[in-house]
Amino acid sequence: MYEGVVQDLIDELGRLPGVGPKSAQRIAFHLLQADPVDVRRLADVLLEVKAKVKFCSTCFNVSEDEQCRICRDPRRDPSVLCVVEEYKDVVAIERTREYRGRYHVLGGAISPIDGIGPDQLRIRELMTRLADGVVTEVILATDPNLEGEATATYLTRMLKVMDLRVTRLASGLPVGGDLEYADEVTLGRAFAGRRAAE
Amino acid sequence: MYEGVVQDLIDELGRLPGVGPKSAQRIAFHLLQADPVDVRRLADVLLEVKAKVKFCSTCFNVSEDEQCRICRDPRRDPSVLCVVEEYKDVVAIERTREYRGRYHVLGGAISPIDGIGPDQLRIRELMTRLADGVVTEVILATDPNLEGEATATYLTRMLKVMDLRVTRLASGLPVGGDLEYADEVTLGRAFAGRRAAE
Repeated sequence: MYEGVVQDLIDELGRLPGVGPKSAQRIAFHLLQADPVDVRRLADVLLEVKAKVKFCSTCFNVSEDEQCRICRDPRRDPSVLCVVEEYKDVVAIERTREYRGRYHVLGGAISPIDGIGPDQLRIRELMTRLADGVVTEVILATDPNLEGEATATYLTRMLKVMDLRVTRLASGLPVGGDLEYADEVTLGRAFAGRRAAE
Repeated sequence: MYEGVVQDLIDELGRLPGVGPKSAQRIAFHLLQADPVDVRRLADVLLEVKAKVKFCSTCFNVSEDEQCRICRDPRRDPSVLCVVEEYKDVVAIERTREYRGRYHVLGGAISPIDGIGPDQLRIRELMTRLADGVVTEVILATDPNLEGEATATYLTRMLKVMDLRVTRLASGLPVGGDLEYADEVTLGRAFAGRRAAE
């Protein structure tokens, strides 16, 4: 429908997650009229990301070096290991400034529908990391959804044989929310996990 | 928050229209894991679009050449000129296969709020094109919204002095829609524009 290269651009943009045909068109038209300098900067950063960004050889976090900042940081507690699904979960947890241990990024969650079983995740690498006995607590911080729960259950079973404390993040009411708007599962978990008032 | 170049990518993506911070993050993470070949193809097409795509020197339609396909096509009727706001309107009209004349792309619509007056649009160029008297009908096909209507009214007034038929696209009920769901302005226009039943 569009002049060749414009259609190519719409097609490429339409392959991005969350970008439907309409948005792809809108973005393409924006780029057509945009300053060439801005478009070149976007193209450059795309190439740079692929050239520079690697995955940490220890924890599989995103990194510009062989080892990520967190694995290299001697102030991080090597005895606590937080297992997450994705790099973005590391970022979310780092943002809290609550956690001073290290990470292990699985690369997803068990999801039979999507053909993702334990072998597709970095579980073997996790076991290898735990073998030297330095880690004494593993915090399972997978997503609180079906796939995340399945992954946590699977890992709990695998880790049971090791001399480790295995913990999970607390479920409950989100801070700042209204109790009446909480879904029943969350509210149920909040009851089950109730603690003595201080 | 993120490793340098990842944050740069999120920032650049967040500048695209309709891409909020969350979507920018989502797209960036997708690209991090994507095949480098795919990312390079996106970067290449971005650069190619800016290098190749020009605007037709006659009608300001998007073009890979000095003149666009439609202006170059001798089978298109040179006596009818359809005035639209943007390139995407040309594409929408071409899709109907109903129109065999040529186009003039204004580059927007009059919108005082956005600081767009007649001087920011290609109205002077339109007047120059009409000067030789080849065009006998001008179809004003601006958007059926406030800005589009203002632009059409302005152009109607400017074109009145010339020996031309000036027409507007019909307003009315969208085909395939339900009458009861039509807004009152559209329904009112449909009444005002009613025709003898065939």
